Amino acid sequence: MIHPDRTGSAPSPAAHADFEARLGEFRGLVAPLLRGTDPDRQPRRYLYDLVDDHLARAGKGLRPALCIATCRAFGGSTETVLPVAAALEMLHNAFLVHDDIEDGSEFRRNRPAMYLEQGIPLAINAGDAMQASSIRLARQSAERLGPAGSRRMLDEFDHLLMESLEGQALEIGWVRDNNCQVDADDYLRMTLKKTCWYSFIHPCRIGAVVSRPDDRASLERFDRFGYFLGLAFQIQDDILNLAGETRTYGKEIGGDLWEGKRTLILIDVFSKADRFESERLRAILAKPRAARVTREIEWMSATIRKYGSLDHARRVAQQFAAAAAGELEAAYAGARDGHDKDFVRDLVRYVVGRRV
Amino acid sequence: MIHPDRTGSAPSPAAHADFEARLGEFRGLVAPLLRGTDPDRQPRRYLYDLVDDHLARAGKGLRPALCIATCRAFGGSTETVLPVAAALEMLHNAFLVHDDIEDGSEFRRNRPAMYLEQGIPLAINAGDAMQASSIRLARQSAERLGPAGSRRMLDEFDHLLMESLEGQALEIGWVRDNNCQVDADDYLRMTLKKTCWYSFIHPCRIGAVVSRPDDRASLERFDRFGYFLGLAFQIQDDILNLAGETRTYGKEIGGDLWEGKRTLILIDVFSKADRFESERLRAILAKPRAARVTREIEWMSATIRKYGSLDHARRVAQQFAAAAAGELEAAYAGARDGHDKDFVRDLVRYVVGRRV
Repeated sequence: MIHPDRTGSAPSPAAHADFEARLGEFRGLVAPLLRGTDPDRQPRRYLYDLVDDHLARAGKGLRPALCIATCRAFGGSTETVLPVAAALEMLHNAFLVHDDIEDGSEFRRNRPAMYLEQGIPLAINAGDAMQASSIRLARQSAERLGPAGSRRMLDEFDHLLMESLEGQALEIGWVRDNNCQVDADDYLRMTLKKTCWYSFIHPCRIGAVVSRPDDRASLERFDRFGYFLGLAFQIQDDILNLAGETRTYGKEIGGDLWEGKRTLILIDVFSKADRFESERLRAILAKPRAARVTREIEWMSATIRKYGSLDHARRVAQQFAAAAAGELEAAYAGARDGHDKDFVRDLVRYVVGRRV
Repeated sequence: MIHPDRTGSAPSPAAHADFEARLGEFRGLVAPLLRGTDPDRQPRRYLYDLVDDHLARAGKGLRPALCIATCRAFGGSTETVLPVAAALEMLHNAFLVHDDIEDGSEFRRNRPAMYLEQGIPLAINAGDAMQASSIRLARQSAERLGPAGSRRMLDEFDHLLMESLEGQALEIGWVRDNNCQVDADDYLRMTLKKTCWYSFIHPCRIGAVVSRPDDRASLERFDRFGYFLGLAFQIQDDILNLAGETRTYGKEIGGDLWEGKRTLILIDVFSKADRFESERLRAILAKPRAARVTREIEWMSATIRKYGSLDHARRVAQQFAAAAAGELEAAYAGARDGHDKDFVRDLVRYVVGRRV
């Protein structure tokens, strides 16, 4: 077990490998449900092959792991929670397929994004089918919970969907309109919507509902934990996008700069840049992505280094991870100690220690 | 009331106007649920304004009308069926937003398509939100039906989604790969998936489930009726796309030719064209849409006229409408006579008589 502390030091390589092995175990539980496309359904070539191929580019599987671990920590059964855990992974993949089109991203898990391999029309349609499949999977768990529990769980899933789509709307709207006034508060609000709800808060809340469907206890006790953890995760993601290695990160390095995303890093640069630099940043970001050139992206990277904005982001991510660690016991009050609660505890360290 | 016969003669202008007035009444029932976006939810500018604006471009509302009329004809309540009827309209709009991107369509209901006004990224995201909202609306009806009825209804909705997305995959896959081997059987199979299930078969089946949630009677009695009616509707849509008037049709005339869609009309031309014409057709369709020129589209139109393929399609649409009329009594056995059953009866004539 990795003992999280508030100093933000990275886990040891052995602890890191151990955590990834446990993540792999959770992935193994969920995988059969993600391969469950009915082989009789057609068309394979224009739809189901695309879906299966994307799911086969397995990600880390953080969301289902957090959901299953939370459910079991509160005494719920693996069998009941598995379908909705798979639903979280399916929906995450649906989002990625559409996000890559919306952001103009080129790579996903070390392969060209689906829309580049299959064309935008089929990729939009495949993402729609994955969203629909995620609801079907969620219903499989809901049906085992009785009417009230079922309703609660599907309400959670619906809220998760809407918050995520609202957050994504903010992010791509800011890029479209080249909004250079976005500040750190805006970023936190957008990230709460775009990342925290579907990746952290709702996986916990849904795991808790499945474990105790008729327990009317508030699910809000997970909100601060998941909010802080999601912020740490997203900021670390933004850092890896700029400073990671292509091979392990699986996407093009610097993609966020090419895409003009309003990350905490870019916002920090804007807040520190002089008037000339701000105007140059704004002018580069005003161009359509395809019109930006390498020299401009390199200048943006150099300006980020000049102002230490990556280090700023690293500090903020560590602070949020520490804040999440501080919320953990309140969120998991009543959960039993053991493997699953340890997993959640170690996840907090992992989100900022990871290089993938 | 329009008395359908098997001759395929068009309804009189007065009967047509009367039917459209009745359609308007159904639209009036559904409209409040489609305007129900919580005004506190954000962002309006990048998400909810787009959704509301698209819904305000009201279509005919055939799907909710058929669902409500069927439910009431079998003794169900308007109040219970309204949310899922609104869900059908919401999902239809979600499909349109994504279809317009996938097809490269320029106009929708006499306005530029959403993606042309707002950009592809925000339009994809708004379509996703509309799909999610449709599920939420469907659940509002389902929750009033008890566990078994609720499950049946949501299974219907899920099947509707998947069939539609499978059919759309076929249509856009054929365009992408410039498949010129598609024959009439392929077209019927694609149209069953793309159009018939979500526009006709499931609106009937869902209306019936809501009226009698615990009735285990097979819903398959609606399948042939909805299949024939959906084929008549889609073929008429393909005809209007080529031979309608822009003002009433609301989309660019000839758009299907620009988009390279495999309609029954195009398939008929391929089956009758000589080798030179087939090769020229194939070569035009092999180009990306933007590379096609007006002269080529005009030559395609002239070839369609030369082979009488529009008249062929009109005859086939009439035959399917007549077949639907022949199935109506079997599908609606046990339904009470009156306003709602008359509406369904008149709908059969309307789908091939309409000019919109």
